[in-house]
Amino acid sequence: MAGNTFGTLLKLSSFGESHGEAIGGIIDGFPSNIEVDFEFIQLQLERRRPGQNVLSTPRNEKDKVIFLSGIFEGKTTGTPIAFLIYNTDKKSEDYDHLKEVFRPSHADYTYTAKYGNRDHRGSGRASARETLSRVVAGALAQIWLKHHDVSIRAYVTQIGPIKAQLHGSAFDYKAIEHNMVRCPDMEAAKEMIKLMEQTKLEGDTLGGIIQGEIIGTPAGIGEPVFDKLHAELGKAMLSINAVKGFELGKGFEAAAMKGSEHNDLMAVKDGTIQFLSNNSGGIQGGISTGENITFKVAFKPVSSIKTPQKTVDKKGQNIQIQIEGRHDVCVVPRAVPIVEGMAALVIMDFILRQKAYNNK
Amino acid sequence: MAGNTFGTLLKLSSFGESHGEAIGGIIDGFPSNIEVDFEFIQLQLERRRPGQNVLSTPRNEKDKVIFLSGIFEGKTTGTPIAFLIYNTDKKSEDYDHLKEVFRPSHADYTYTAKYGNRDHRGSGRASARETLSRVVAGALAQIWLKHHDVSIRAYVTQIGPIKAQLHGSAFDYKAIEHNMVRCPDMEAAKEMIKLMEQTKLEGDTLGGIIQGEIIGTPAGIGEPVFDKLHAELGKAMLSINAVKGFELGKGFEAAAMKGSEHNDLMAVKDGTIQFLSNNSGGIQGGISTGENITFKVAFKPVSSIKTPQKTVDKKGQNIQIQIEGRHDVCVVPRAVPIVEGMAALVIMDFILRQKAYNNK
Amino acid sequence: MAGNTFGTLLKLSSFGESHGEAIGGIIDGFPSNIEVDFEFIQLQLERRRPGQNVLSTPRNEKDKVIFLSGIFEGKTTGTPIAFLIYNTDKKSEDYDHLKEVFRPSHADYTYTAKYGNRDHRGSGRASARETLSRVVAGALAQIWLKHHDVSIRAYVTQIGPIKAQLHGSAFDYKAIEHNMVRCPDMEAAKEMIKLMEQTKLEGDTLGGIIQGEIIGTPAGIGEPVFDKLHAELGKAMLSINAVKGFELGKGFEAAAMKGSEHNDLMAVKDGTIQFLSNNSGGIQGGISTGENITFKVAFKPVSSIKTPQKTVDKKGQNIQIQIEGRHDVCVVPRAVPIVEGMAALVIMDFILRQKAYNNK
Amino acid sequence: MAGNTFGTLLKLSSFGESHGEAIGGIIDGFPSNIEVDFEFIQLQLERRRPGQNVLSTPRNEKDKVIFLSGIFEGKTTGTPIAFLIYNTDKKSEDYDHLKEVFRPSHADYTYTAKYGNRDHRGSGRASARETLSRVVAGALAQIWLKHHDVSIRAYVTQIGPIKAQLHGSAFDYKAIEHNMVRCPDMEAAKEMIKLMEQTKLEGDTLGGIIQGEIIGTPAGIGEPVFDKLHAELGKAMLSINAVKGFELGKGFEAAAMKGSEHNDLMAVKDGTIQFLSNNSGGIQGGISTGENITFKVAFKPVSSIKTPQKTVDKKGQNIQIQIEGRHDVCVVPRAVPIVEGMAALVIMDFILRQKAYNNK
Repeated sequence: MAGNTFGTLLKLSSFGESHGEAIGGIIDGFPSNIEVDFEFIQLQLERRRPGQNVLSTPRNEKDKVIFLSGIFEGKTTGTPIAFLIYNTDKKSEDYDHLKEVFRPSHADYTYTAKYGNRDHRGSGRASARETLSRVVAGALAQIWLKHHDVSIRAYVTQIGPIKAQLHGSAFDYKAIEHNMVRCPDMEAAKEMIKLMEQTKLEGDTLGGIIQGEIIGTPAGIGEPVFDKLHAELGKAMLSINAVKGFELGKGFEAAAMKGSEHNDLMAVKDGTIQFLSNNSGGIQGGISTGENITFKVAFKPVSSIKTPQKTVDKKGQNIQIQIEGRHDVCVVPRAVPIVEGMAALVIMDFILRQKAYNNK
Repeated sequence: MAGNTFGTLLKLSSFGESHGEAIGGIIDGFPSNIEVDFEFIQLQLERRRPGQNVLSTPRNEKDKVIFLSGIFEGKTTGTPIAFLIYNTDKKSEDYDHLKEVFRPSHADYTYTAKYGNRDHRGSGRASARETLSRVVAGALAQIWLKHHDVSIRAYVTQIGPIKAQLHGSAFDYKAIEHNMVRCPDMEAAKEMIKLMEQTKLEGDTLGGIIQGEIIGTPAGIGEPVFDKLHAELGKAMLSINAVKGFELGKGFEAAAMKGSEHNDLMAVKDGTIQFLSNNSGGIQGGISTGENITFKVAFKPVSSIKTPQKTVDKKGQNIQIQIEGRHDVCVVPRAVPIVEGMAALVIMDFILRQKAYNNK
Repeated sequence: MAGNTFGTLLKLSSFGESHGEAIGGIIDGFPSNIEVDFEFIQLQLERRRPGQNVLSTPRNEKDKVIFLSGIFEGKTTGTPIAFLIYNTDKKSEDYDHLKEVFRPSHADYTYTAKYGNRDHRGSGRASARETLSRVVAGALAQIWLKHHDVSIRAYVTQIGPIKAQLHGSAFDYKAIEHNMVRCPDMEAAKEMIKLMEQTKLEGDTLGGIIQGEIIGTPAGIGEPVFDKLHAELGKAMLSINAVKGFELGKGFEAAAMKGSEHNDLMAVKDGTIQFLSNNSGGIQGGISTGENITFKVAFKPVSSIKTPQKTVDKKGQNIQIQIEGRHDVCVVPRAVPIVEGMAALVIMDFILRQKAYNNK
Repeated sequence: MAGNTFGTLLKLSSFGESHGEAIGGIIDGFPSNIEVDFEFIQLQLERRRPGQNVLSTPRNEKDKVIFLSGIFEGKTTGTPIAFLIYNTDKKSEDYDHLKEVFRPSHADYTYTAKYGNRDHRGSGRASARETLSRVVAGALAQIWLKHHDVSIRAYVTQIGPIKAQLHGSAFDYKAIEHNMVRCPDMEAAKEMIKLMEQTKLEGDTLGGIIQGEIIGTPAGIGEPVFDKLHAELGKAMLSINAVKGFELGKGFEAAAMKGSEHNDLMAVKDGTIQFLSNNSGGIQGGISTGENITFKVAFKPVSSIKTPQKTVDKKGQNIQIQIEGRHDVCVVPRAVPIVEGMAALVIMDFILRQKAYNNK
C-alpha cells in the first residue's frame, strides 16, 4: 500500500529516481500472445522526451527502453513484463546547492516530512522523469487496446491563458502533431508558442490543459459504486505530476446547467440506440455508454522558475533561491503521451475486469 | 475487484439497492478502543436525509443506522463494524412503468449493458441512496480523526449559476448550517433558494459545487507516485453520484497562472516553517504540506426532470417519458455530509498508512 | 488490510461476533443472472450447524440466512450480495466468569494483545461461528461452479488416531452423509463415533483430518509465482479455525519419495492427454493440470476441555479454570461444509481471474 | 491480480525467466532510513546459489544483485527498491530439444494450458531461479526485522526418508552451516549426503523437509479472520517451487492429540505471562502469542530425473524422454534461505500492519 502500483488486473509497479541508475517498472497481468510494437512504444517515449525543441528542457536523454522479461520471440508471454530506461544524462552535482533547500511548490519539503530524508538530486522520486514508466506501460496497453478497437487521443487545449477553439473549422485533429505544443488549433498553437518564448525570457513558467478522448469503449465498462470508470480515470490523471484538476464531459460547467440542458437524450436510429448528445462524457452511473469518453486535465505551471524566491532551508533559516538548470517553460505538450498512457492503463484494466465477470 | 470496496487500510465495503431490504456496509480496519459517538453519526445521516425541507425529495425515511458488530460496550473492538439502514419507505410499484425504459442520463442503460439485467426499482444499486453507507463510515472516520486533531468541513459554493462569495465579509462558516442550502454566504443562499423554488415549478433541476477543507492534517501524508493524496481524494469525490469534476487548490485556474504567481513561498516565523500562500491546496508532490487541504467538487443537475424527454425502451423503440415521483430539484446541499464522509475516509486511510511506515 | 476480506475478483467480506447481533458478510464480484438455489445454501448451513447430534454442541440455532441485496427475482444482479444470520440463541451471561481469564489455546490472550480489549462472550470474533459466512458464500460459489462443471467434495479421514481406509472396498463416497462423522469408510466411522463418545465422557476433545477434492477444474487455472493455486487454497484452509496443516497431493509423504516415484507420467489415450498418476494433486507449477485437485487439512483438538487447567487471568495471577458450557468433542465433521465452501471460493476466484486474461 | 506480487504493506513484485535477461523485483513499502547490509543480502544469495558443491547443479552463476533505486547513500529512502540479477550463465540451446515436449511433473503442460505459449528455455518463469528475488527481498526484510529484535532460522530436518533428531544432544543449531545439507544433526547430515550421492548415481532425485522458526515476534501480530498469521505464512511457503505441504506447530500430528495434551497452559513467572508448552507453534486464533513461531515445509523430489520417462509432446504424440543437463539431486538445502526470506517478508508485513492499527 505504498502507492507505487497502479491498476487491479493490469498492474504497473513503478520504480526509479531521476538521478538514480534507472527508471522502470513491472507490468503484471498483461495477456499472452500479443505482438509487441516496439517502435510505437519508443515513439511515445520520444513524444514525452525533453529536448524535443528549444522550449523544453535540453536534458538530452535517449530514453531507450530495455525489456528484461515477459516478452519472448516478439510476443508477450503472460508473465511479468519488466523494463527499464537508464538515466544516462544525469548531472547530480548540478543539484548539490539544493541539498539543504526546500524549493517552493516542489516536493522537497513534503518528501522530507514523510520519509525523514530526501534524494535531492533532481527531485529524486518526485521528478516527472518517473512518468517514463507510465508511457511505456501505457503504450503496451494501447497496443492491446488496438486489438479491441479502442483508441486514445489527447491534445493541448490551453497554455497559460491562451485557449484553443474546440469546435468549428479551427479545430483539426491532424494539426496536433504538426505544431510543437500539440494543439489541434493551429492559430492558437502559434500564440501559445509565442507566449512560451516570451515567458522563457522572463524566467517564468506556464501551466495548461490537456483534453483526452477514449474512442471505441463498448457500453458496460466500469465498476461502481467506488470504482466508477471516471473515478479511476480521475485518479490516474491526478496522479500525474503537476495535475490539479480533472473533469469528465461538461465537468464544472455542468454545475451551472439545468437537467433539461445536460441530460443526454436517446433515440433508436437504424436499429441501434444512439445518444443525441454526450454531455455525460461517455459515462453514466460510472459505466461507459459506448460514446467517446471525454475528459480534461489541468496542469499547474512548472515550479522551477529563474526569478529569486523566498524560501527556507533544512536548518529553518529564511533564504532566497534562484533555480538555474534545465527546466521546461511548460511541460503540458510533453504530458500528452502520459495522459494517453494513463488513460490506456485505466481502460484496459476495466475491460479485463469486465471480461472476468461477464457470462460469455 | 468489483468496485464496492473503498480504501486500503481502512476499508468500506458497501451494499444495497434503494428498494431492496437495506443499505449498509462493513468497515474493516477501524482501530480498537474508540468510543463511538452515535449521535454524531445519526446527525450526519440527518443532514443527508431527503425530506429535510420542501425542496428536497419528500421520501421520508428515518434512516436509522443499526450496528451489527465490531462495537462492544460503546467502543470499537478492532473487528469489522457492520451496519445497515432498512429501506422503510420504498414504493417499488412507483417504478413499474419504468421497468422497460432507459431514462436519459440515468444509469439504466449502462447497468443493463454491464450486467445484462437491471433492478429497475428506484435506480437499484445506482441510486444515490447508496451514499448512506458512505456517510456512516465517514462519520466514524471523523470520530477517529478528532482524536488526531483533524477535522473536515464542506459547504455549497454554487447552485446553478449562483455563486457564493468565498472571501471577505460575505463569507461566514457559521452561516453554513443556518440556511437550507448549506452555503457560507447568506445572501447567495437566499438567491440559491429562490432559484431552486422557481426551477422546481418548471419541473427542471439544478447542479452545483461543493467546496471541502481538511484541517489539521500533519505534513507528510500521502503515497506517491500513484496514490498521491489528492489522486485518492479525487477518486473518492468522483465516485459520488452525479459528480463530474474535481479540483485541488487552484484547480483549473492554475492552468492560466504563471509559476511566479502559483508557487507557494515559505518562511520561518516564530521558529516554525510557514507557507505564505496555499495555491497548492495543501498538497505538494502528492503529500500533505500541513496547510489546509482545499478542494472543489462539481455536481451535474439531477437527471430526473418532469418535462417530457425523448428516449428509448428495452425493445429498441423510440418513446417519450415524463418522470414523476419524489425527486430533488438539487441534491447538492444534501451531498455536503457525503463529501465530508468521503474526505474523512481518505484522510484517515492515509494517516494509517503513514503510521505503518514511519520509524517511530 | 485488516484481514476480513477473502479473494480477489470474488471477494467475501465477513463480519460478526458469536454473541453479537449477527454473523454475515458481503460477496462482491459475483456474476449476474445466476439463479440462486436457496435450499442448497441452507443445506450447507445445516451440515455445519451445531446440535446435529448428541456429540456436537447443543447450542441450537436455526442459522437461517437472510439476503439483503444483490439478488432480484431469484437471480443475482452482479451487485454486492449482503447476507446475515442472527445470533438467536446467545447466552452471553454463560461467559461472564471468563471475562478476566485467558483460556489455554484459545484466542483470548492473543486478541487482548492485539486489540487491547476483548469481547469475551463466546470468543467473540474468534469464535468458529464466524465460519457461517464462509459456508454461505462458499455455497453460492458452488452454485456458480456447477454451471462450469466444477464440483467439490470433502470428508473426514481421521478423528483422533482413528484413520479411514482411503482405498479399496472400504472406501465409499456414498457413505459420507450416512454417518454422523462424514467419513467415507463406515467401519472407521463407527470407531470414530465410539471414540468421540468416550472422549466426551472424559471431558476431553479430539482433532482430525478432512480430505478435499475439486473435480472438473480445467487445466490452466492458477496465478504463479505467488498466487499459485495451491498456495491460495492452503491459505484458505489454514484460515479456518483450528486448522494446523495443509497438504496438496502427496504432501509431506512426497518428501520421502524419489523423483521417479513421484513424477506423474503422461500419455495420449483416445486423442487426449492423460496423466498416469496424480501424485501432484492436480496442480503443477501452481496451475491446474485438469486432474482432480486433492488436499488434506489437519484440525487440532477443540481447546475447550472440561478438565481443570492451569492458566492466568488479566491481572497476571495464576489460576485454574474448568470450562463448562456447550462445546463439541470434535468439530471436524461439522467443518466439512466449511472446507467445501472455502475450496469453492478459491477455485471460482481463480476461474474468474483466468477469464479476465485469456484471449478468447 | 496476476499473481506476481506478494504482501500487502510490504510488497514484492517479481519478474524474470530463467533464461531471459534477468531475474529481479521491486520492493514497495520498505521504510526509509534503514542502513542496507549488502554483504548479508549477497550471503543469502550465495546460500541459495547452485554449484555450491558437487551435489547441486553446476550452473555456476555469480548471482550478483544490482540495486537500481530506493537506496541512497547506503540507506533506504522509502521509495521502491528495484533490483536485478543478470542471467549470465544461460545456455538456452540446451533446452532446444525440449521445446515441443511436456516434461513429467514440470509446469510445461500447465503453463501451455494457461498462457497458450511457453518459454521453454529452462522452464522459463516456472524455474526455481525465480526465487532469487524472494531471497533478496527476504534478506532486506531480515535486516529490518533485526531492528525489531525478530530473527529467523531454517534448517533441513529430512531428506528422502532420512530424518534428523530434533531434540536432545544430537540437535545443534551451530551444526547447520557446517554441513552441506544444512541439517542441525551432524549424524543425520552424513547419512543424507550419502543418500544424495547414491541417488545422483542412480539418476534419481530426492525431496525433504525444512523446519523454520521465527524468534522474537511480539504477541498480537496477525489479521484474522482470513489473514491469520499462519495462513499467510502457509501461502508464502506453498508458493515456493516444489512445496507440497505446510504445518504450524504440531501440524498433522495435532489431529491425533487430545485437547488436554495439545493445549498450551499458561503461568505467570517473574511477573510475566509464560506458556508452559508451544504446541500451537506460536500462533493462536491467527495471532502471535510471543512464543517462537515454528513451522515445517515439505518439498517434493526434483522432477528432472535422468532415467527415461513416458510423456507426450505438443503434437499429442506419446514419446519417451531422458532429461540431461544441470540439475540438483535435491534442492532442499538450497531452499533454506528461500524459506527464511519468505518468512521474513510475511512477518515484517504483519508487523507493519499492526503498526498501522495500534493506538500508540
